[in-house]
Amino acid sequence: MQKERIHIFDTTLRDGEQAPGYSMNLDEKIRMALQLEALGVDVIEAGFAIASEGDFESIKAVCEHVKKPIIASLSRSLEKDIDASYEAIRGAERGRIHLFLATSDLHLKYKLRMSREEVLDRSTKMVAYARNKIDDVQFSLEDATRTDLDYLCAVVEAVINAGANVVNLPDTVGYASTGDLHRMVDTVMNRVPNADKAIIAVHCHNDLGMGVANTLAGLNAGARQAEVTICGIGERAGNAALEEVVMNLKTRGDIYPFETNINTEQITQSARVLKQITGVKIHPSKAIGGSNAFAHESGIHQHGMMANSLTYEIMTPESVGVKKTSLVLGKHSGQHAFEQRLGELGYSFTKEELSRLFSEFKNLADRKKNVEERDLIALVESAYQGAPTIWELDSFVVNSGNLITSTACVTLKKDDEKHQEVAWGTGPVYAALRAVEKIVDHPFSLEDYTLQAVTEHRDALGEVFVKLRDERGTYRGRGVSTDVIEASILSCLAAINKMVDGAPAKQEHPFKPTNDHSFENDMLMNNSDKRRFM
Amino acid sequence: MQKERIHIFDTTLRDGEQAPGYSMNLDEKIRMALQLEALGVDVIEAGFAIASEGDFESIKAVCEHVKKPIIASLSRSLEKDIDASYEAIRGAERGRIHLFLATSDLHLKYKLRMSREEVLDRSTKMVAYARNKIDDVQFSLEDATRTDLDYLCAVVEAVINAGANVVNLPDTVGYASTGDLHRMVDTVMNRVPNADKAIIAVHCHNDLGMGVANTLAGLNAGARQAEVTICGIGERAGNAALEEVVMNLKTRGDIYPFETNINTEQITQSARVLKQITGVKIHPSKAIGGSNAFAHESGIHQHGMMANSLTYEIMTPESVGVKKTSLVLGKHSGQHAFEQRLGELGYSFTKEELSRLFSEFKNLADRKKNVEERDLIALVESAYQGAPTIWELDSFVVNSGNLITSTACVTLKKDDEKHQEVAWGTGPVYAALRAVEKIVDHPFSLEDYTLQAVTEHRDALGEVFVKLRDERGTYRGRGVSTDVIEASILSCLAAINKMVDGAPAKQEHPFKPTNDHSFENDMLMNNSDKRRFM
Repeated sequence: MQKERIHIFDTTLRDGEQAPGYSMNLDEKIRMALQLEALGVDVIEAGFAIASEGDFESIKAVCEHVKKPIIASLSRSLEKDIDASYEAIRGAERGRIHLFLATSDLHLKYKLRMSREEVLDRSTKMVAYARNKIDDVQFSLEDATRTDLDYLCAVVEAVINAGANVVNLPDTVGYASTGDLHRMVDTVMNRVPNADKAIIAVHCHNDLGMGVANTLAGLNAGARQAEVTICGIGERAGNAALEEVVMNLKTRGDIYPFETNINTEQITQSARVLKQITGVKIHPSKAIGGSNAFAHESGIHQHGMMANSLTYEIMTPESVGVKKTSLVLGKHSGQHAFEQRLGELGYSFTKEELSRLFSEFKNLADRKKNVEERDLIALVESAYQGAPTIWELDSFVVNSGNLITSTACVTLKKDDEKHQEVAWGTGPVYAALRAVEKIVDHPFSLEDYTLQAVTEHRDALGEVFVKLRDERGTYRGRGVSTDVIEASILSCLAAINKMVDGAPAKQEHPFKPTNDHSFENDMLMNNSDKRRFM
Repeated sequence: MQKERIHIFDTTLRDGEQAPGYSMNLDEKIRMALQLEALGVDVIEAGFAIASEGDFESIKAVCEHVKKPIIASLSRSLEKDIDASYEAIRGAERGRIHLFLATSDLHLKYKLRMSREEVLDRSTKMVAYARNKIDDVQFSLEDATRTDLDYLCAVVEAVINAGANVVNLPDTVGYASTGDLHRMVDTVMNRVPNADKAIIAVHCHNDLGMGVANTLAGLNAGARQAEVTICGIGERAGNAALEEVVMNLKTRGDIYPFETNINTEQITQSARVLKQITGVKIHPSKAIGGSNAFAHESGIHQHGMMANSLTYEIMTPESVGVKKTSLVLGKHSGQHAFEQRLGELGYSFTKEELSRLFSEFKNLADRKKNVEERDLIALVESAYQGAPTIWELDSFVVNSGNLITSTACVTLKKDDEKHQEVAWGTGPVYAALRAVEKIVDHPFSLEDYTLQAVTEHRDALGEVFVKLRDERGTYRGRGVSTDVIEASILSCLAAINKMVDGAPAKQEHPFKPTNDHSFENDMLMNNSDKRRFM
């Protein structure tokens, strides 16, 4: 069977990043993009250049660091959006401008207040405008699955004629059935005369749990680009999950005559990096990425294991990068064994970082009998959060009880100078964070706090994720310790160090959205709109 | 369009409960079953009677408490399994025995070591045996999607002739495509002469993220029973999610000529009860049930909201029971307002329980300025965990810091007598739990520990879930407090009270599996096998 190539367009950094709880800063975007490159995606949509200064700078930075995949920036069908996207990606080895405009009558009438002719006209003009700047232009027909099929075909034909290399037909609201997807793509392939001049793409949301199935239906009908995210994150119920689409194609190679460039053994590490950056846990039942997905592996009865794995295993855990070994390290493990273990887990560090991590590992091994793989990952993840070292924990003491008021005395170091404060609170964490806030003298609010035991022992590491907010934005931090209060303070300091580091005024954004436009009044760029295309 | 009735067979309590982290005790199963009854499912698979004494007793208890749905018990195709299932469900208003036997050559060869003839023979004999006991018998062809189609049709015909009312064709390993499912069911409907004498069912696993799409494909081809779980929990990557299957049918009534008995407004509460019982959070991106699923609602721009909701909303949050109100209660709120609020949230309590909850609410309102809906839910959930009151927290003090050893002094009450102990640990939680363990004098290990802030404020309630293990089993507990240490102790006491309550020897299981059988050696009943049918 001749295998046709499916292009994997990853939008974890754009559609995924827009979902509540998944926002990433510049360093985090670079880190995720490097992992996506290792995974082998064809296109990374790195952001929406005009949406914010942060997005613009992140796209630029991703273009500097990531060379193999195409880097795309999203743009409304507006010249200034295209200009911003072009500026953001011009440093890329290969850059793509990704335009969108809604085509369903519902959106035309209520959101754009434009006629079909106006939308057709603007689409082609803007594709041509973008093609004058760059060779690779993608056009998305927002809400394609609810668009009149004749009109849809007309727009697809026109934008291909105008120079679009890729035309995307998104199921923006996750409403379509597999039959709908197949019919739409099939109609385009058969009716649009120049359909072979462009790659047809699908971008399926998961509001009814159909994202992956709809993507496969689109590919079966002739689409050759799948727009996906790691673990299916994204707006509302998210997008089709990259790992599920790819593993369907691979596991069912007997019925799908397709191949991708994905190195499936990097799937688990990609999910881990995402979790590590965002602090959002992967659900245990998540297909492929969840901790239970291969649970038949652990519960397996030794008798007849080979036979059983044939009967119950449709893909091996190894094929997606789940390692079976869980070699335990202890206080007598040397730096070499430690480094080798990190390498096997897919991490690479500078010598300096390795030395610091090894000393943290030694501290942990003194407190905890066995250091398991999960402990090691938590340790590495907390060290690897892109926070500068400004404030450091020196010491703390808390007193707490149900009949007394909790108090905390905290000493922090900054530039080798010690600062001490005491505070009370309704609990020891609250008290400790108040003491920290007094010292750093930068007010913040606590937006999120979770604590999780890393392993199932009473002396387990506690891993705390916090999200702090000041008037400029939110900052995530992670901390691990066998002491929950210490983990809380450490996570808070990581977030604070990001917060105070960025405190000086940033470079002005070169393409600030303005309010003095007419057409754009119908395509309002605001927080709610940013949340809701495709 | 004539709407055909789809029967919803919920296996949250059997397939779902078997997944790591989801085990439920008797009270929890009753509670979940009552919620499933309110949701309007047609069949509740309450357990696997012969698998354990706990399963047997739970099924019996569910039959006593839940009257509207059919209650099913799973059985291998063995007389003693059928006997056990019959004993467990004989008290039901309407009971069903659910038999299964694998039919794929892979399973016949490696697992059962039986020929096709032997499997066919045993299937029909056991269906007849079960029908002699009860009128409602379901037969499942394990691994149907990998079974030879001719043989599959022969088995379906034979078991219907033998008296099966429902024949289920599971995608046991989650390997099938929508095309596979459609072809299989369509073939059965068209080729099996007596197919109209039974309801054909599908049971689709989600290993490749296709559970819901495959279920819909099966229904499109003629299946009239969908086997699902709340939030899609279940073996490995789980089952098709009830809420996704049902909301596809409802939202896309234009293409699906089906109706169900589900009261969709009970969906959110059903997911909440599951989370509350198991402590496993619903992923924010989970379709329908996740906190982000309707996030376009909150970010909505006021201007043009009506228009926008048409353009971006395919189902309303209210249709699945997401309430928009989040009325805040405070220390001056009266018991009436409090009770009304609980009622709106879908909880019902006895007067005694309400009084206790109200006094806990008042305590909280003293410590926390505004009590939000989420606080209220956390409070109620922690009070509602089916643990008897044996050990109660009197007082505790902890001392902790990074340069000192954490210590905890804890006083517990039992039968109005106070018991005090002190202990140290690598952190204050560890120290506190050790002190508790010393007092209760019942050794346990800590299997899981998570702590989460209920709301986004620094004085937020911390909600702790723990899972403890002794030599007899695992016990979950939940605790909430503004103090993380207190929440930890409370959660631990809830689990301990379940643990010590069940400590005396239990009634002997009437149908203990034995090892003196021959055929069963090929159908080993052990922990790993329990994890892996259908």
